[in-house]
Amino acid sequence: MTDEQERNPAEPLRVGVLGARGRMGLEVCKAVDAAADMELVATVDQGDDLSAVAEAGAEVVVDFTTPDVVMENLRWCVEQGVHAVVGTTGFTEERLEQVRGWLADKPGVGMVIAPNFGIGAVLMMQFAARAARHFESVEIIEQHHPRKLDAPSGTATHTARQIAQARAEAGLGPVPDATKDEVPGARGAQIDGIRVHAVRATGLVAHQEVLFGTTGETLTIRHDSYDRASFMPGVLLAVRAVGDRPGLTVGLDPLLG
Amino acid sequence: MTDEQERNPAEPLRVGVLGARGRMGLEVCKAVDAAADMELVATVDQGDDLSAVAEAGAEVVVDFTTPDVVMENLRWCVEQGVHAVVGTTGFTEERLEQVRGWLADKPGVGMVIAPNFGIGAVLMMQFAARAARHFESVEIIEQHHPRKLDAPSGTATHTARQIAQARAEAGLGPVPDATKDEVPGARGAQIDGIRVHAVRATGLVAHQEVLFGTTGETLTIRHDSYDRASFMPGVLLAVRAVGDRPGLTVGLDPLLG
Amino acid sequence: MTDEQERNPAEPLRVGVLGARGRMGLEVCKAVDAAADMELVATVDQGDDLSAVAEAGAEVVVDFTTPDVVMENLRWCVEQGVHAVVGTTGFTEERLEQVRGWLADKPGVGMVIAPNFGIGAVLMMQFAARAARHFESVEIIEQHHPRKLDAPSGTATHTARQIAQARAEAGLGPVPDATKDEVPGARGAQIDGIRVHAVRATGLVAHQEVLFGTTGETLTIRHDSYDRASFMPGVLLAVRAVGDRPGLTVGLDPLLG
Amino acid sequence: MTDEQERNPAEPLRVGVLGARGRMGLEVCKAVDAAADMELVATVDQGDDLSAVAEAGAEVVVDFTTPDVVMENLRWCVEQGVHAVVGTTGFTEERLEQVRGWLADKPGVGMVIAPNFGIGAVLMMQFAARAARHFESVEIIEQHHPRKLDAPSGTATHTARQIAQARAEAGLGPVPDATKDEVPGARGAQIDGIRVHAVRATGLVAHQEVLFGTTGETLTIRHDSYDRASFMPGVLLAVRAVGDRPGLTVGLDPLLG
Repeated sequence: MTDEQERNPAEPLRVGVLGARGRMGLEVCKAVDAAADMELVATVDQGDDLSAVAEAGAEVVVDFTTPDVVMENLRWCVEQGVHAVVGTTGFTEERLEQVRGWLADKPGVGMVIAPNFGIGAVLMMQFAARAARHFESVEIIEQHHPRKLDAPSGTATHTARQIAQARAEAGLGPVPDATKDEVPGARGAQIDGIRVHAVRATGLVAHQEVLFGTTGETLTIRHDSYDRASFMPGVLLAVRAVGDRPGLTVGLDPLLG
Repeated sequence: MTDEQERNPAEPLRVGVLGARGRMGLEVCKAVDAAADMELVATVDQGDDLSAVAEAGAEVVVDFTTPDVVMENLRWCVEQGVHAVVGTTGFTEERLEQVRGWLADKPGVGMVIAPNFGIGAVLMMQFAARAARHFESVEIIEQHHPRKLDAPSGTATHTARQIAQARAEAGLGPVPDATKDEVPGARGAQIDGIRVHAVRATGLVAHQEVLFGTTGETLTIRHDSYDRASFMPGVLLAVRAVGDRPGLTVGLDPLLG
Repeated sequence: MTDEQERNPAEPLRVGVLGARGRMGLEVCKAVDAAADMELVATVDQGDDLSAVAEAGAEVVVDFTTPDVVMENLRWCVEQGVHAVVGTTGFTEERLEQVRGWLADKPGVGMVIAPNFGIGAVLMMQFAARAARHFESVEIIEQHHPRKLDAPSGTATHTARQIAQARAEAGLGPVPDATKDEVPGARGAQIDGIRVHAVRATGLVAHQEVLFGTTGETLTIRHDSYDRASFMPGVLLAVRAVGDRPGLTVGLDPLLG
Repeated sequence: MTDEQERNPAEPLRVGVLGARGRMGLEVCKAVDAAADMELVATVDQGDDLSAVAEAGAEVVVDFTTPDVVMENLRWCVEQGVHAVVGTTGFTEERLEQVRGWLADKPGVGMVIAPNFGIGAVLMMQFAARAARHFESVEIIEQHHPRKLDAPSGTATHTARQIAQARAEAGLGPVPDATKDEVPGARGAQIDGIRVHAVRATGLVAHQEVLFGTTGETLTIRHDSYDRASFMPGVLLAVRAVGDRPGLTVGLDPLLG
């Protein structure tokens, strides 16, 4: 199935979905179904047999399952020569190494494992890391619904770390700040020296703003996510690209280049 | 000069400026000069005699001086029957009472004393206080240049207090917030139970956003101040209005309808 | 049922919903059900008998039906002494007059008819009308999903008209604009002399920004609506208030104090 | 002067300014003066002799003069082996070719000619071009003071063209838009098929927002420029980099990589 030379690009890509009855899986099924260049040929969930995927002739599998079954799924995909796009969480460096090992034995197979399929969020982080070295000041303001348990969000923390690293590589010192008299918390949390503010309000969904400042100007990169469907363009992008990327690709970044 | 019955509205209003060579005073002189319906007839600063104001026939005086001389200036204005618009700081309730006493003896004279002549900032606070009772959630994000010493700003603190009071009057409970796992400071400072975030970045001047949220929607009121000249429309508004408002007016609010 | 003297405020308000199986009606049922101070006692739709409402002892009825049945519904409510909150469209001045006539004969009954129950949108328009007289410049930017047929939106047009009227009353001239060289359309549409820009993009829901500017500062009032549920707080507000407002109330404005 | 092998990086870079008494030139002198790693060794304007630059041992020259004298200045710089950073306008492809010819004969000399030294604006355009291929929808909103003569701004037009080109290269079709009923101008100007809206208001300086949208999410890149000083970080960046970039560099882009 993975021999790209033999693929007829005029035919729709045959896609199977694992975890097809979960929240994300259902969205993936809808999105694949609606894509003109794809065909949803197999949907598998707890209790179903993976062989249905092979019998249906799936070329790419999308896996939104759980950490306890995903490794077995992926080993099976590699053995069968089926490409995989994986949104399931829980990938440690150890697990990634194991996957790389399997793929080494099957040079034609591609796999994309990404913690975040939101194209907007990934580009926001990419642009933030690139802008970081050129601005004296930077702060992050993330905004979410009030049922969220952690503050700041994982995306904000990750963005702050990437910015801090880019600043360090460029030899930038600490962000200027003359604050002498602060009501505790007013200046936000510090993540690797970068100030992060977490706003919570009913009505909000998931939003983040990265504000850069230098003499006389500011640059703001803002991402607004309104619903779960926002991950689908990223999933479809990966489904289309994975066949041309043998081996393991971690994160959506390299596909957005 | 204060007898409004005799004023010919076709003639420009005769304005004197006290503290005319200070930073704010210079701006006031420029603004009065540029206003078609006003004439700058006297400019006084340290070392000059106030009698120049009377000799020039000033109908309204604008005072941007210092706390140690302002009371003497205002007593003189009331005695001379000259209306006054005052941006000088340091007015305690005691001082305001003293001014009210002087004015009681001169029923035709008006005086406007305001801590903030920025029309945008005053309207932002007014609207925020009005919206407060209708939204489950509210947070304040203020943004300033990094040379600022206090965080949050005085305007943000004042806004938070007004919002907290409006919520209490409407019987609203605390803002919903499920945060369990917080990097210290991420959720901002608490001013009377309202979360306030202070952002500092080179390039910024003075900005504030009040974010209200309820089911499925948010309302944002944002004020951006770019330079000192932003106070001038408020000063001119007060100069035009003070003659029709005998007695003491504190703050720009009542003039904004 | 409408004799407020006899109401026991400790008991939940008994609410009936007309058009209960429509898109909005379903949301209203959910919202009433979730409100601690209300009880959903009757749900009526096409084919059902209105008498169910009376039998259930409803004190307030919410009507999200259609222009062809709403008038009959409202006449019945007034006759039965049941207060009504109405979101159905199509109310001409003629229809409002007819409703006023019915209510004149039943002095204890209240009715709220509103074209828009979004508290945020209504406050945005209210604040915009109030700010209008104090700023030299003003423009409106509305942003919606790309399936919308009209540009600008009805809300933007209504806001522009209110602003234009407030400017006229304050004696303000045209907004300053030195544009000499314009690519057609760049400066937006003109609604009563106010520039309105309509942005359309996938991912957006319904958003509007009113930008006011004067020397050195801007004031922005922004409303973001994320889903249909955003109308519910306004509906519940009207349900709670209608019993204390005999006669006809048009629009949410008077309830927002 | 241009032999980088002999440069002692511990010594401040010796900088001369041409057009030193013009608006931009004055800002450049201040910025160079304030930079710890530079020394302002020569300031030249109309009527002064260029030889002062050579005598002062300038390593880099910054030219903010006029189209009628800039070519002579640059030929002289190349002959003298002095690097140049040029913000003067009026560079046609013909002029750039001539400069390339001069530089070909002096392989060690570097020159940066840029129409815009605002780092924020250049990054905004760079990021917009990169994001363009990943989003179904995109629109541009630029906001300026009301004394501006053209609409949309040159930066907005340039951004739109780059976005249109990136979309074409990625095989994207037209942006979705169901508008049927438009008040003329509401949907903005079309630049190569991209909608651009130009807002004008007193109080604004120079601002631009690029809004990208796809299913369930939007990405916004916003640039706010507050004063002329905003070009200085870009000028200093070029002054530091030009010695390591022999030949002609057009635009700030390659230096921000």
